[in-house]
Amino acid sequence: MRMPRLPHDIRRVRSNPDFWYPVAWSRELRRGRAIGVRYAGQPIVVVRPEAGAIFALDDVCPHRQVPLSKGDVCGDFVRCAYHGLKYSRRGQCFSSDMKIEDDLPRLRKWACQEKDGLIFVFMGPMEKSDSVPLPDIPRVRDPHYRTRRFGKIVKCHYSFMHENLMDMNHQVLHSRLVGSMKPRFLGMERGHDFVEARYTFARMAGKQPLSEALIYGQRRKEGRNFAYRDVMTIRTQYPYQALRIETQGVEEPVMDLWIAYVPQDREEQTNRVFGLLSIRRLKVPFILDLAWPLLVAFTERVFAEDREIVELEQRAWQEQGGDRNQEVFPVIMALRQLLVQNGISAQTA
Amino acid sequence: MRMPRLPHDIRRVRSNPDFWYPVAWSRELRRGRAIGVRYAGQPIVVVRPEAGAIFALDDVCPHRQVPLSKGDVCGDFVRCAYHGLKYSRRGQCFSSDMKIEDDLPRLRKWACQEKDGLIFVFMGPMEKSDSVPLPDIPRVRDPHYRTRRFGKIVKCHYSFMHENLMDMNHQVLHSRLVGSMKPRFLGMERGHDFVEARYTFARMAGKQPLSEALIYGQRRKEGRNFAYRDVMTIRTQYPYQALRIETQGVEEPVMDLWIAYVPQDREEQTNRVFGLLSIRRLKVPFILDLAWPLLVAFTERVFAEDREIVELEQRAWQEQGGDRNQEVFPVIMALRQLLVQNGISAQTA
Amino acid sequence: MRMPRLPHDIRRVRSNPDFWYPVAWSRELRRGRAIGVRYAGQPIVVVRPEAGAIFALDDVCPHRQVPLSKGDVCGDFVRCAYHGLKYSRRGQCFSSDMKIEDDLPRLRKWACQEKDGLIFVFMGPMEKSDSVPLPDIPRVRDPHYRTRRFGKIVKCHYSFMHENLMDMNHQVLHSRLVGSMKPRFLGMERGHDFVEARYTFARMAGKQPLSEALIYGQRRKEGRNFAYRDVMTIRTQYPYQALRIETQGVEEPVMDLWIAYVPQDREEQTNRVFGLLSIRRLKVPFILDLAWPLLVAFTERVFAEDREIVELEQRAWQEQGGDRNQEVFPVIMALRQLLVQNGISAQTA
Repeated sequence: MRMPRLPHDIRRVRSNPDFWYPVAWSRELRRGRAIGVRYAGQPIVVVRPEAGAIFALDDVCPHRQVPLSKGDVCGDFVRCAYHGLKYSRRGQCFSSDMKIEDDLPRLRKWACQEKDGLIFVFMGPMEKSDSVPLPDIPRVRDPHYRTRRFGKIVKCHYSFMHENLMDMNHQVLHSRLVGSMKPRFLGMERGHDFVEARYTFARMAGKQPLSEALIYGQRRKEGRNFAYRDVMTIRTQYPYQALRIETQGVEEPVMDLWIAYVPQDREEQTNRVFGLLSIRRLKVPFILDLAWPLLVAFTERVFAEDREIVELEQRAWQEQGGDRNQEVFPVIMALRQLLVQNGISAQTA
Repeated sequence: MRMPRLPHDIRRVRSNPDFWYPVAWSRELRRGRAIGVRYAGQPIVVVRPEAGAIFALDDVCPHRQVPLSKGDVCGDFVRCAYHGLKYSRRGQCFSSDMKIEDDLPRLRKWACQEKDGLIFVFMGPMEKSDSVPLPDIPRVRDPHYRTRRFGKIVKCHYSFMHENLMDMNHQVLHSRLVGSMKPRFLGMERGHDFVEARYTFARMAGKQPLSEALIYGQRRKEGRNFAYRDVMTIRTQYPYQALRIETQGVEEPVMDLWIAYVPQDREEQTNRVFGLLSIRRLKVPFILDLAWPLLVAFTERVFAEDREIVELEQRAWQEQGGDRNQEVFPVIMALRQLLVQNGISAQTA
Repeated sequence: MRMPRLPHDIRRVRSNPDFWYPVAWSRELRRGRAIGVRYAGQPIVVVRPEAGAIFALDDVCPHRQVPLSKGDVCGDFVRCAYHGLKYSRRGQCFSSDMKIEDDLPRLRKWACQEKDGLIFVFMGPMEKSDSVPLPDIPRVRDPHYRTRRFGKIVKCHYSFMHENLMDMNHQVLHSRLVGSMKPRFLGMERGHDFVEARYTFARMAGKQPLSEALIYGQRRKEGRNFAYRDVMTIRTQYPYQALRIETQGVEEPVMDLWIAYVPQDREEQTNRVFGLLSIRRLKVPFILDLAWPLLVAFTERVFAEDREIVELEQRAWQEQGGDRNQEVFPVIMALRQLLVQNGISAQTA
């Protein structure tokens, strides 16, 4: 059974802009400062005035085209570093002595909100932004969990990232870190804007790593007895992705990951990752805090292995001049369809 | 009032080769040595034989195309590093045992002169070179001035540099170094090959920096009293640029800058700067010498800020695929017209 | 006399794949390991299983296109790092639990042999490989010689390397290392698949370097007396090259070099060099061993000078957009014809 070739090369499918995309962590932008970010090649300046809410404009001064984010914030205005032109949160241009500059066009503004320590920008038309909800990441605010924020630039199309997380048959890649794990696929659900897959695992060889014990809240000495007791659920809820682990005898997930891949360049072949990894606190809660640096190192190493492999996939795609993958796993075939149908294909763009 | 869009993208206009362009400082080229330089992608070797004047040839051995500047100088000849072929100042090729090599075409030679510590090459047809004078930089030889030679590679089209120096409304850019200065535009003159603008300034806030006091030869404690007492004149005399500052009660300029931007690559989007900044000596002349390192550091920092901003302009031009500037200042509009009319537009090249 | 311009730009002529090309040193590939190599843009994984001979496959997992060489070796199989798919020496794909994966195409395999410390791959059709012999490098196995293996990446088309070694009129390039040597061309032989040139030399000035004395087994105090006593023979036996030095009174060559240039990228403008330099042992054999580090340093420096000049040639070719060489030396003209006729020209490829 070969996958029917999709009409579009999935690695050329643009992400759909009619969503809220995280563009920076809240902690990156202090009061009275501006920050330059990108979505799919579009430069955006996000401004946090001394008072009031953040706002976002095109990060290009219409006068001389330099990035406004190189300038500074004066009251409720962002001021261009070059000639001192000032822009209000509505994009109106003022001269340095605060006269309206009619010669210069108004700057495009972007809907912009802050939630759960993330700064989101709505990349579609402003008027649509009200009807599209911000993503909800409830564990971040739940005192029973501790959350790690992480993310790096990954040099590949976002679809490689979705496929990587969704396809749990890649345990070999992490075997040096987690030992030999055998996944069992439990089933999949799908809708017009999501794909969800469930797996369970058995340890085939090797000891349970300490980091895993901390996540599950259990030390498992004999692997076989604990085979297939946990359920891992991975869901692409377009355009975001989530992964949670539930284990027998614990009502709430022991781990809950929310992750977004935000295209940086116009070709969307470089993505910035925003990940929030929430781990349920143990009965003796400070143990998790004590072990936190260990968990950080462990997850960082797993993520580094994933990043290396998806960047190799991207490089192969580049060299081969297109997608030659021979996909056979129905979950990944469904996921690809989802990403193509919800994204913007080159031909239809 | 919007600027009527010029028929040509100013950032694609090539510099006019029928001028003397500095390509190196005299001190860079010792006796018995050769140096490889560039003008708009054209590699040139300048040779200073053990005796006699310098000369310039195409920096490409016609035999195997390697740069002659990688070789050495033998008497009045430059010798290729690879097979030892020798070239005379007239471009004639000789074998290593000094037989004329008829098989190889004569190398193109370039008119080349040295003046005021600069090596100039005439980049147009040789026969035109006699009728075009070398630029005159008189302060360099005047004992009442001390001159600083400076220059770096700047990664932008030369027009950004001309505009940067001519448009004194960009005081915001340097406010951390010079405090808050308010420019007043005094007027402009223009001809077929020049644009000249005059400004005066008032200090709005902050103390006069020591470096400025050294240049003006005056310590100015209360800014307001000294407002609008100096005149800064900036002139683009195609293809060069000059800036001088005159102050009340001093007959000669307190500062006189001559500057040239020499395209390195074929697209002329990288320029080497040759600047000569002459500062009038104070009554107690050694004070200027003592304070020289301070002045060097000050001017270097101002220049670094300018370089950063023009390179950001170039990058924006690249990304936007063309010139989208919304220019409103008549001086800059006149300057652009000058650069287009005196340069070589892509379509007419 | 100008060289009749060849119908094809020699720098675009592809190397003929119907030969055995070295792709790695044997010592680079330990038992139970895999290595990723390249020939003209084609990624190849060479596998040395725990038992049995080496084998070579396309270095691309057909499932997700990642290089198999990033994975590991399990028994007689190479295992993909991502999902653990295994490939046999025949290119057959197996799942991690050793079921045949019919969904995935068989991997292309390449004829692969090991000889004289080199791993060779036959880059033409497998069925031709039997009729094409491996190159013979007899001195490597001869106890009267000591052999140095060397090689680096050189960023130029392989033809520049062939020309560089064959044209002994480039003594100027090495004059700082070997003194002033005058070559005398003795003659040339050619056939459909080879060109051979012979030279002899006289020292014009400078002292014989110690390294040369070690190679010739003679200390030569007065250069003139030893003029034209040695014969250097350089042969391009397509696609390899060899250089040997014979001297009066010694029956076998005092030096014998075998060298191959293996294109790495698709455009064949980057080559990996595999060189085997055999030097005849002196009567007191351990002297050569003692002096070996000196010889290594000497040959390395000569090679560095050659590498710099051929990379300059390549850069000039790139900038000029084609071959503008004015070749007059019949040996090089014959060599160029050989490389064009035995290679694959762009138009016929």
